[in-house]
Amino acid sequence: MKKLLLLILIGMPFLIQAQNTMQPYLTLADATKISDAAEAKSKAEGWNMVIVVLDAGGHMISLRKMDGVQLGSIDVALGKAKTAVYFKRPTKAFEDMMKVEGGVRIATLPNAVAIEGGLPIVKDGVLVGAIGISGASSAQDGIVAEAGIAVYK
Amino acid sequence: MKKLLLLILIGMPFLIQAQNTMQPYLTLADATKISDAAEAKSKAEGWNMVIVVLDAGGHMISLRKMDGVQLGSIDVALGKAKTAVYFKRPTKAFEDMMKVEGGVRIATLPNAVAIEGGLPIVKDGVLVGAIGISGASSAQDGIVAEAGIAVYK
Amino acid sequence: MKKLLLLILIGMPFLIQAQNTMQPYLTLADATKISDAAEAKSKAEGWNMVIVVLDAGGHMISLRKMDGVQLGSIDVALGKAKTAVYFKRPTKAFEDMMKVEGGVRIATLPNAVAIEGGLPIVKDGVLVGAIGISGASSAQDGIVAEAGIAVYK
Amino acid sequence: MKKLLLLILIGMPFLIQAQNTMQPYLTLADATKISDAAEAKSKAEGWNMVIVVLDAGGHMISLRKMDGVQLGSIDVALGKAKTAVYFKRPTKAFEDMMKVEGGVRIATLPNAVAIEGGLPIVKDGVLVGAIGISGASSAQDGIVAEAGIAVYK
Repeated sequence: MKKLLLLILIGMPFLIQAQNTMQPYLTLADATKISDAAEAKSKAEGWNMVIVVLDAGGHMISLRKMDGVQLGSIDVALGKAKTAVYFKRPTKAFEDMMKVEGGVRIATLPNAVAIEGGLPIVKDGVLVGAIGISGASSAQDGIVAEAGIAVYK
Repeated sequence: MKKLLLLILIGMPFLIQAQNTMQPYLTLADATKISDAAEAKSKAEGWNMVIVVLDAGGHMISLRKMDGVQLGSIDVALGKAKTAVYFKRPTKAFEDMMKVEGGVRIATLPNAVAIEGGLPIVKDGVLVGAIGISGASSAQDGIVAEAGIAVYK
Repeated sequence: MKKLLLLILIGMPFLIQAQNTMQPYLTLADATKISDAAEAKSKAEGWNMVIVVLDAGGHMISLRKMDGVQLGSIDVALGKAKTAVYFKRPTKAFEDMMKVEGGVRIATLPNAVAIEGGLPIVKDGVLVGAIGISGASSAQDGIVAEAGIAVYK
Repeated sequence: MKKLLLLILIGMPFLIQAQNTMQPYLTLADATKISDAAEAKSKAEGWNMVIVVLDAGGHMISLRKMDGVQLGSIDVALGKAKTAVYFKRPTKAFEDMMKVEGGVRIATLPNAVAIEGGLPIVKDGVLVGAIGISGASSAQDGIVAEAGIAVYK
């Protein structure tokens, strides 16, 4: 019995370590579900958007550009999503920081688009990717980004 | 009769959508006409300019650099015109936004040159390209850009 | 004879000389239909792919990356599709040219990925965009690209 | 008399040095004349081309893209002209080098497009710029480039 307990105790760190070498990740099915929700919200509001979902490395899993959206929104949506991955926070956090005295320094930060519409996607406390939205006002972009990740949370 | 009118009105969106799978575009002849007008205005004012006309994908149709213009104006004119294509608005809109509190966030926007002198070119309500001017003050650049598209409108 | 073939392949496939200043374009619905067909073919064959559809200006309308595909395939698929837009021909045309004597000069051609898997999308004789596929062998990429545009032709 | 000759001989280097502090350069009028000739030749042959003229620093003086030319020809024409400026030789020189054993090393040369259609523009033995043509076969591109500089020589 003591021997069994010893084995269990000795074995525990190994098991924990083994669990820590695993992390959740986004699948294309996840990204499609998130994008469908974002597109549905966009259509319901009468907005045209670019909808981007990135993985935890900042690489594209999916992108869709609704008809008539300005070309600039492609790189803006990509930039917002990349910012949310690279800095593990909503892009609105940087937008707010820029309004404070001295906050203009954020404009020198590499890979940071300081405009609402980018949100990190988190599973079990681990960053698995981000969504980036552009096409309407930045507040509206933010609403659609929230609608997208709402179906994943 | 009222019923017929109703059917026609309801049917319109479908027809418009079907027609929307075709769109107008700029020709080299258009770009040359626009550039000639911009150059004539520049000469009349005694200004030397870089004059760029892009298509709806942000690609060059024509560029001309008048003698003595600073080299930097080539990329500035290209950047202004690209901004006008990518964001479907005059670059002055971004210039004005940057003057408002928090507007400095525009400096983090990909592909946006926030300086007057870039104007979208629109035909039948559809963006077909843009003109970008650089070489004098940004207000003067704007005047020449207006003179260019005036002959296309 | 091989040199003659090379000349013909380099020679531009002249598409419609537009007297008409209107031209067709791809919608998101078109791009989704094309991508769905490409993904279905990939799944049926047991291949994982990145599937990209660009517009006539070389800008993304849609991208989807199936689970487990190497990251490099994102830029490869984008590059193949861009090549097909920029040079109005299948990327396999450049792959074949590089096999001919002197054909290695294609390696110095800007914006050309000379690997099968990129196909122009043409409507009414006008280039409206391109599909780019990467993830399996280049021949398999080509098969999936064909399956994609087959539903649009 | 000998003294005068001595003065002349001593003075010569100074005069030569004084002449060397001046160099010819291309004007927009020159570039337009060259481009008009190239466009006229293109039209006469039924080819559509991108026609670029660069200055001695490799910067654009003028660019024009005839209707329907593939987008890729913009960067190809720019690349050919830049090559002709940067290496003071026709791009065909590099194309020919690539056909020789070991010539594939040219593909690693920065700023070298090894495809016919780029020609240096020389005045009084001094490089003043280059013309770059793309849109048809590389041999046809070369014919149009020659037609362009023929009016300047």
